[in-house]
Parts: sequence; C-alpha cells; structure tokens
Amino acid sequence: MHKGRLEAFSDGVIAIIITIMVLELKVPHGTDWAALRPLAPAFSSYVLSFVYIGIYWNNHHHLLHATQQVGGRILWSNLHLLFWQSLVPFVTGFMGENRFAPLPTALYGFVLLMSGVSYRALQAAIIARQGRGSLLAGAVGRDFKGKLSLALYVAGIALSFASPWLAVTLYVLVAAMWFVPDRRIERALERRAEPA
Amino acid sequence: MHKGRLEAFSDGVIAIIITIMVLELKVPHGTDWAALRPLAPAFSSYVLSFVYIGIYWNNHHHLLHATQQVGGRILWSNLHLLFWQSLVPFVTGFMGENRFAPLPTALYGFVLLMSGVSYRALQAAIIARQGRGSLLAGAVGRDFKGKLSLALYVAGIALSFASPWLAVTLYVLVAAMWFVPDRRIERALERRAEPA
Amino acid sequence: MHKGRLEAFSDGVIAIIITIMVLELKVPHGTDWAALRPLAPAFSSYVLSFVYIGIYWNNHHHLLHATQQVGGRILWSNLHLLFWQSLVPFVTGFMGENRFAPLPTALYGFVLLMSGVSYRALQAAIIARQGRGSLLAGAVGRDFKGKLSLALYVAGIALSFASPWLAVTLYVLVAAMWFVPDRRIERALERRAEPA
Amino acid sequence: MHKGRLEAFSDGVIAIIITIMVLELKVPHGTDWAALRPLAPAFSSYVLSFVYIGIYWNNHHHLLHATQQVGGRILWSNLHLLFWQSLVPFVTGFMGENRFAPLPTALYGFVLLMSGVSYRALQAAIIARQGRGSLLAGAVGRDFKGKLSLALYVAGIALSFASPWLAVTLYVLVAAMWFVPDRRIERALERRAEPA
Repeated sequence: MHKGRLEAFSDGVIAIIITIMVLELKVPHGTDWAALRPLAPAFSSYVLSFVYIGIYWNNHHHLLHATQQVGGRILWSNLHLLFWQSLVPFVTGFMGENRFAPLPTALYGFVLLMSGVSYRALQAAIIARQGRGSLLAGAVGRDFKGKLSLALYVAGIALSFASPWLAVTLYVLVAAMWFVPDRRIERALERRAEPA
Repeated sequence: MHKGRLEAFSDGVIAIIITIMVLELKVPHGTDWAALRPLAPAFSSYVLSFVYIGIYWNNHHHLLHATQQVGGRILWSNLHLLFWQSLVPFVTGFMGENRFAPLPTALYGFVLLMSGVSYRALQAAIIARQGRGSLLAGAVGRDFKGKLSLALYVAGIALSFASPWLAVTLYVLVAAMWFVPDRRIERALERRAEPA
Repeated sequence: MHKGRLEAFSDGVIAIIITIMVLELKVPHGTDWAALRPLAPAFSSYVLSFVYIGIYWNNHHHLLHATQQVGGRILWSNLHLLFWQSLVPFVTGFMGENRFAPLPTALYGFVLLMSGVSYRALQAAIIARQGRGSLLAGAVGRDFKGKLSLALYVAGIALSFASPWLAVTLYVLVAAMWFVPDRRIERALERRAEPA
Repeated sequence: MHKGRLEAFSDGVIAIIITIMVLELKVPHGTDWAALRPLAPAFSSYVLSFVYIGIYWNNHHHLLHATQQVGGRILWSNLHLLFWQSLVPFVTGFMGENRFAPLPTALYGFVLLMSGVSYRALQAAIIARQGRGSLLAGAVGRDFKGKLSLALYVAGIALSFASPWLAVTLYVLVAAMWFVPDRRIERALERRAEPA
C-alpha cells in the first residue's frame, strides 16, 4: 500500500480540524469592547489548540517521511491518532467557553494525553514494520521528550482540579518544547547520508 | 479519465465527513461530571461512526487501488456511495442525541445499509469495466462478507423497534468484521505476482 | 502556472461544499415519524443540490482536463464559479427549510443560473487562451446544451412566483440533462487521436 | 523537507476557510424580500472576504512557486499566516451581522493587517533561506505594494471609529490593488529565462 494517500487523507483531516475550531468562536452579541472581553478565554484556548495541531501536523509529516510501506497496523494507528485529534475542537470549545474551569481543563489535558499516547503508538507501529535497526528507531532513541510530555499532561490533568491555570501553564510548556520540529529524524537522515 | 482526481476528491469528502461529525458533539452547559454524562450516548455513536467511516476509507482505498480506468458509471457509483456516507453525521447526531431511541437507531442502520449497497454497486461497476476475469472479480469472489453485512444491517433495522441495544450490537459486530482491511484484494495481488 | 494546484484547490472547495450542506439538515427534536416528516423538503433539496454539485465537479474535471496552461483570467474565472457554488448550501437550506416557498425557490434558481453563467465564462476563458481552433472550442461548439440550461433556469426563476413546484421540476430537468458527463470533450479527444 | 505537502496542507486550510464562511450566512426566518434585506451587510462582507482569501491563495501559490526548500522557519511562518486567515470567517460574521459597526469593522481590518504582516514575514523567511540574490528577492524588490497595503489597513482601522464606510472603502481598495496576481514573480522568472 502506498503512503501517499495516507498522507493526503491525514493532511485533509488535520487541515479541517485546525480550521473548524474557529466555528467554536461564537460571534458575540454587542459591538463594544465589553462584548469582546468574554471571548478572551475562548480565543486563548483557540490559539493553544492551533499551535498543538500545527505541531502534530509538523511531526506527523516527519514521521511519515521516515516511512516507506504502510500496512493495516500503521493505518489504524494513524486513524487512532486522528480520532483523538478530532476531539480537540470539542475540548477547546468546552475549556474556552467555561473560562478554564477545572473539569474542562482536565478533559483538555486528557485529549492531549491520548493524542500523545496514540502518536507514540503510531511511531511504534512504524518502527515495528521497519525493524529495530531502522532510521526512525535510531532517531527516536529512548524518546525522553515523548515520555516527559506524557508525564506533564498527567500532572496537568491532576493539577486542573487544584489550579487550572497551573495546568494550562504545563500544557503551554509542552507545546513550547515541541514547537521546534523534531530535528532528531532530520539529523539521523543526515548522518546516514554521510560517508562512514 | 484519470483515477487520481477521483481518489483525491473521495478522500477530501471522507476526510470532511469524519471531521465535521464532531460538530454534532455540542459543548455542554455546566462544568461538572453531571453535565458530561448526557453526552455519553452522543460520544458512543461518534466513536462507532468514526470507525465506520475509517473502514470505508480503508476499503475504498483498496477498491480504487485495483482500478485502472474510470468512466461515467464508476464516477456516479462513487458519488452515490459518498452521498450515503455524507448522511452519517446527520444520523449519528440523531441517534446520539436521542439516546438510541428506536426510530433514530433504525435510521442509522438504514444509512449503513445504503452505504453497503452503494459500496457493492461501485464494486460491481468496477468489475463490469474490467471484465469478469479481472483481479478484483477474483478477489471479491461471491462476496460472502458483503452479503452477510447487508443481512445484519436489515436485522438491526428490524430489531431497533424491539431492542435498540441489540441493533447497535449488530452494527458493532459488522464494524468488527470489517475492521481488518479487506485482505482478499491484497492476497489476489500477491497470487498474481507469483510465477505460475 | 501549473494547473495541478488549481485542480486540487477546486476539488477541495467542491468537496467541502458538497459535505457541509448536510449541516443544514438540522437534527429534529422528537424521535417518531411525525418528527421526521418536516425534514422531507430539506432532504429533497439536499439531494438535488448534491446531484448538482456532483455534476459541476464532473464537468469541471473534464474542462480542466482539456486545459494546459493557467493564467490570471482562468484563475479568477474559476474562483468566480466557486463563489456561486459556495452559495449552494445557503440557498439549499433556505429553500428546504421554507418548503419550496416562491422567493427561496427563485433564489435557488438564481444561484444555479449564476453558476451556469460563470461556468460558461470559465469555458470561454480557457478557449480564449487556447485559441478558436482548440480542442475545447471544437468540443463545445455552439454549446446548445449550455444555452438551453440558462434559459430553463431563467424560466424556473420566473415560474417560482407562480408555481414553485414547476420551477423545481425545471431544475430537476436540467440536472437530468447534465447527469451524463459531457461526452463532447471525450469525443473530440478521440477524433483527434484518429489518423486523418 | 518537500514543499509539496506544505502546499497541499495550505490549500486544504484555505479551501476550508473560503467555504465555511458561508456557514456565517444564517438562513433567514421568513420568505419575503423583507426577510432577505437584513442579510445584505452579511453578504457584502462575505463577498469581500471571499475575494481576499482568493487573493491570498493566488499569491501564496506564486510565493511557494518561487521556493525550493522548506525548513522550520518557513513552516511556522506559513502556519502563522494560516492562523490569521483562519480568523477571517469569525471577523466576517462579526462585521456582517453588526452591519459594519465601528469595532467589528476595525477588528476586520486588524485581521487583514495581521494577515498582511504574516504574509510579508513568510516572504522574508523564504528570501532568508534563498539568499538576497534570489529570484524572489529580486521580484519583490522594496515591496512598495506590500507596505502601502499595511499602511491602508492601519488607516482603515483608525477610520473605523469615525466612518466605518470609509474604512471598508479602503479595504476594498487594497483588494482591488491585489486583484491582479503578483506579476513581479512571473516577470522575474521570464527575465531569468532570457539569454543575457
């Protein structure tokens, strides 16, 4: 099976997710600054989710770049990742409209956590297909950054019920950590290209 | 006519269907667990439909993979399939918001049935173009799995009025049956590649 | 400029138009047949619009197939066509929710008319770029079918205020007329391929 | 990294933005001309935004055409541009539903301004990658048109609070100025193709 159509389909889904989120920004009634102010939390969560979806698109791009063949396991792992991503507009609206209340903030973190878990499962499916000695396996290594992210999401979920703002700070921190595209795969590609 | 644009268009429509379904998950009023609980049936039907659309994308992929040329009949058979798929978000919302009430559950089954019927019609259109001795005709054979699915949908629709949960169980069963991508086409491709 | 990206963009827009129309089918309150019955006009107009968008995608496909180069005029003619197509979900909802009332039915016809006018303008822009002796110019000829469609739309718009159902019948008639993909371009391509 | 997937993703996002804007055109209650009249401002702002998104797609097309390689900075500059574009449906609805009230009109101008700023940042990122002597750098030159647009947006934002209609006139003026695709890149390409 060819990876091109998997990439095209994933790009389509991610492009739609990142764009329909704006439909959760309800046009306010009233035309003065007071009417706009209640939108601030919804807008902030929109920005955070936009960055997260952008990061996932970016890294998904790198992940499939390192893939040659696609089988049933990779295909469903990919759909599993897209499933959790597809819930981002919902939890973004839920958290934003409720001004970062505890439960919505925890649920937002849960969707981030499951996105991270399913991303790592997709990564594992690709490595399983390519073998332990593959380019991607070498590039990912022990995946410290991936594991740290999951730990920070779990911490964020727990903290949501004590201090939602601290939880959101953790989510922002993880986003910042991944903001730069994953250079490990690029570096591994370059190493391989060099003469031994 | 080239099949590439048909694939791209179908991928686009399926990607949008699978993603806009989330817009039927209305952000709840209230921020405690009690506010989330009524969402459970809507979320369950969302998951079921996500898996169904994923299965269709996957098998559609295989079906067109085995196609070389595209004519008017294939083109309209494909649009006919996309038409029934496009109704999935509507019946998903209808069934989920009404907590699996009889009529919505039957209607959900009806859209699954018509999707299955139109998928088989597309399959037949491709085989008609390629001839009875074609790869796809051999791979599909008597299509026992396809016929069984249609029978189970019909049973589910009838059962909806007696026991909606039994109907949903049947729909889940068919999804489980198709979860694994259709290996028949892959196997037939491999057989052909082997020396006689 | 390459026509590939114009095709991909148009496909994307048309795929979204044909899919978001379903969002105008509002999930009914109530779960019995009486709750579904008021949806019948909305559903009918959904089916008609789905077929129309399918026809446009299909013929747009043929039109660009016969195109080699894309300049500013073709690009904006194409966006002009997409603009009128993008209004189809709006007039579909307007006509369907108001059970084919006179003004909504006339407005629906007006959007069909402007889609037809802009399609012919795109056709003219492509012929202008290729020259009068081009393949497309020969295939289209005097474009009797195109002119007849426009006349029937105008008749439909006028009739909407006397008998909306007669107007809708005319719209269905034009759709039936175009249902078969435009064979003229295919035939012209075949003629050219034959030795003189 | 390959620019193809960046183009495809951007096309997808822009296609969705230009199409979901129509969802802000709410189907009116009532079926006479009086029911349609209040839609006029919403429709006007829809047309203006459609033309703007069309212009961005068009020029984005030219910009990436002149690009060979894509790195992290270009990727995030592109997402930054898409972020501001993704807010266009929101401000279009806000300005249209409030019949060009001062604050919504200023906010609309602000999103246009930030789109322009982020477009120029993307342009700068591409030139930085290619070097000062590159084709794009030569084509853009001192970018008088780009700077003038930003100035007119700023003027429009300020004028919104005195005379919103004057502000909208400025926005229309900038759109008219960019309506013709950016010939500078095409001309530079042609110059390079000529023998010295």
